[in-house]
Amino acid sequence: MLIDGFRFAATAAGIKKPGVPDLALMVADTPAAAAGVFTRNRVQAAPVLVCRERLRGGRVQAILVNAGNANACTGEAGLAAARETCRRAAELLAIPERLVLPSSTGVIGPPLPGDRITQALPQLAAGLNPDGLGEAARAIMTTDTRPKASLVKGRIDGREFTLAGIAKGSGMIHPDMATLLVFLFTDAAASPKILKKLLRQALPVSFNRITVDGDTSTNDTILLLASGRAGNARLEAAGPAMTALGDALNQVMGELAWQVVADGEGARHAYRVEITGAATRAEAKRAALTVALSPLVKTAMAGEDVNWGRIMAALGRAGARFDPESVAIAFGDQPVVQNGRGLGPQAEAAAQAVIKSGTFTVAIHLHAGGFNDYYDTCDFTEDYIRINADYRS
Amino acid sequence: MLIDGFRFAATAAGIKKPGVPDLALMVADTPAAAAGVFTRNRVQAAPVLVCRERLRGGRVQAILVNAGNANACTGEAGLAAARETCRRAAELLAIPERLVLPSSTGVIGPPLPGDRITQALPQLAAGLNPDGLGEAARAIMTTDTRPKASLVKGRIDGREFTLAGIAKGSGMIHPDMATLLVFLFTDAAASPKILKKLLRQALPVSFNRITVDGDTSTNDTILLLASGRAGNARLEAAGPAMTALGDALNQVMGELAWQVVADGEGARHAYRVEITGAATRAEAKRAALTVALSPLVKTAMAGEDVNWGRIMAALGRAGARFDPESVAIAFGDQPVVQNGRGLGPQAEAAAQAVIKSGTFTVAIHLHAGGFNDYYDTCDFTEDYIRINADYRS
Repeated sequence: MLIDGFRFAATAAGIKKPGVPDLALMVADTPAAAAGVFTRNRVQAAPVLVCRERLRGGRVQAILVNAGNANACTGEAGLAAARETCRRAAELLAIPERLVLPSSTGVIGPPLPGDRITQALPQLAAGLNPDGLGEAARAIMTTDTRPKASLVKGRIDGREFTLAGIAKGSGMIHPDMATLLVFLFTDAAASPKILKKLLRQALPVSFNRITVDGDTSTNDTILLLASGRAGNARLEAAGPAMTALGDALNQVMGELAWQVVADGEGARHAYRVEITGAATRAEAKRAALTVALSPLVKTAMAGEDVNWGRIMAALGRAGARFDPESVAIAFGDQPVVQNGRGLGPQAEAAAQAVIKSGTFTVAIHLHAGGFNDYYDTCDFTEDYIRINADYRS
Repeated sequence: MLIDGFRFAATAAGIKKPGVPDLALMVADTPAAAAGVFTRNRVQAAPVLVCRERLRGGRVQAILVNAGNANACTGEAGLAAARETCRRAAELLAIPERLVLPSSTGVIGPPLPGDRITQALPQLAAGLNPDGLGEAARAIMTTDTRPKASLVKGRIDGREFTLAGIAKGSGMIHPDMATLLVFLFTDAAASPKILKKLLRQALPVSFNRITVDGDTSTNDTILLLASGRAGNARLEAAGPAMTALGDALNQVMGELAWQVVADGEGARHAYRVEITGAATRAEAKRAALTVALSPLVKTAMAGEDVNWGRIMAALGRAGARFDPESVAIAFGDQPVVQNGRGLGPQAEAAAQAVIKSGTFTVAIHLHAGGFNDYYDTCDFTEDYIRINADYRS
């Protein structure tokens, strides 16, 4: 995963368990055009506040990320620690401090162990290499069971460009925020304004369409950096060139979002809840989200139980208008409900085979209008409870 | 549990597993004044539709309840089965059919086994006795681990009256609906209009303040019957007499609601999330509900982990305005957060002892205004998943 103009490194700084990678550094050879979106949670971690402030300049040269400690609810001391670790990184890299962004994920509350981070910095900086994005993806994991990365190539004005990204996120994931940590890099040339616009366009088809548990974080951050090394004329306005980069971004962010859902805490099944025929756009969204979030539907999927009654009950409380006697439900291509009535054991057995495949769509037709929407989610297993009941202990 | 003017019976009709009580009959000696509140789910079970229709008369003489089958999403056939079982009960009891209400709880979708119910009716009717309310409470259980009942006595105009109720409910419980099955009986005399008014007043301090999993049912029903045998002048308007009955109702419904939460599916801890100092009434409610529903907070409580960071994160996405640096959080009397900052390991150890007690309050002060609210809820354990992943199989 090479993106021209960027180098990456990761190391174990002792923030998580000893010896486990938990610190990553991502550096652009020269200041990169940059944009970001952040959590809308009222409680915002120190690194998020620093990121917002420094991104106003539209240029970023380095991102310093730790896992294991969120640096949230840590007050002035937390802000100082975020700034100080970035200052030390800037010193080592011989770049301006204001071009270094901090990012953190992990437990909320405890003070950031800034000393461990600064102690690990020299080794981290020494390890920077163009091929290190995969290692960085591993270092930012918390309860994730696997690193998440995606890369696509595209063309602008006949010139090839690369866009790649990594993500961390498994629990505390919900769509109404920017969601989790995501770092995206491209060698295309584009203005910060265009990058911001493309990020916003990509959210509704990626991280704003997934939910694991309805909980959101104080640290959610998505950053997009563009080195310009691909040599295209810098994108400054809408047009086919912008569309090419936007398509690549949608694809990478969409893939990362699906990887997050499929690696949802304790997940054994990942599925899309697809609503067709809602009376309004808002009702399509509410219906999809309500079914996707329903713990009773999620536990039924964990049990590979075609319990469509729970889907009907969830639809009924979603605030969407529909006639219960008109609803149709299918698992993949297998209908199980037509005109609000179950199609019987044979249909359910066939639908169960669809669930057992591990990845599937629950297709719901409300027959109430012309609006569609979807959410991607995963099932709710004993392991979700185990992971979260024991997270700090 | 005797309530003058009522008799009760329960039996095993073979709707759940063979030999398990699953059918109850509750009969007033003469037609009782009655009121009810029902699920606001758009998908409403057949018995709910029949109840609504028959309650318009304001009088009820019998309630026929089954567990094991919800008779929901069953169309015209479901309505016919609900009516037919009531007709047979009316015949046996020699009372008008329109005074018999059906009620069902259990799996959504399969047709109601009406034959099993009618076959069990003669034995059920023969078993009617004034002391049978406890048995009825047991027969309406689904995933409940224990029957739920409450009784209080009061005075109106110097005459003693009794009010008692039973409830069933464990999962699929959420406040924005009337919630689960609840049957209430009193020997006080009151008009149907007053009964309805008192029911509505009691909801915000009972079943509208509990949540187990955010899911709501197609069958939620609360019925209140008054025999008038206590001999008080029939309540027709507001006044001290109405307040006495209202207090009794609040107490019985409040106790039943807490019993439901404490027996939430898989629950090991029951707790109240109490918000103080919100900027508006709506924000107080939203904040309390968001923390009470948060799977991450619920799993932390299962793990007896004083993970106040998750409470902060849930507050932050509740849509309530507050300054994170002003928030205070306590478990029982033990503060763990002041001015948005953790008070350290010693405070957390003391708070953990509060959680270990099994029943406690999470007290949150937002310092943003003068409005308070609360929700009662329970923790989220592996058993919740097990119960719901295996419910039909």
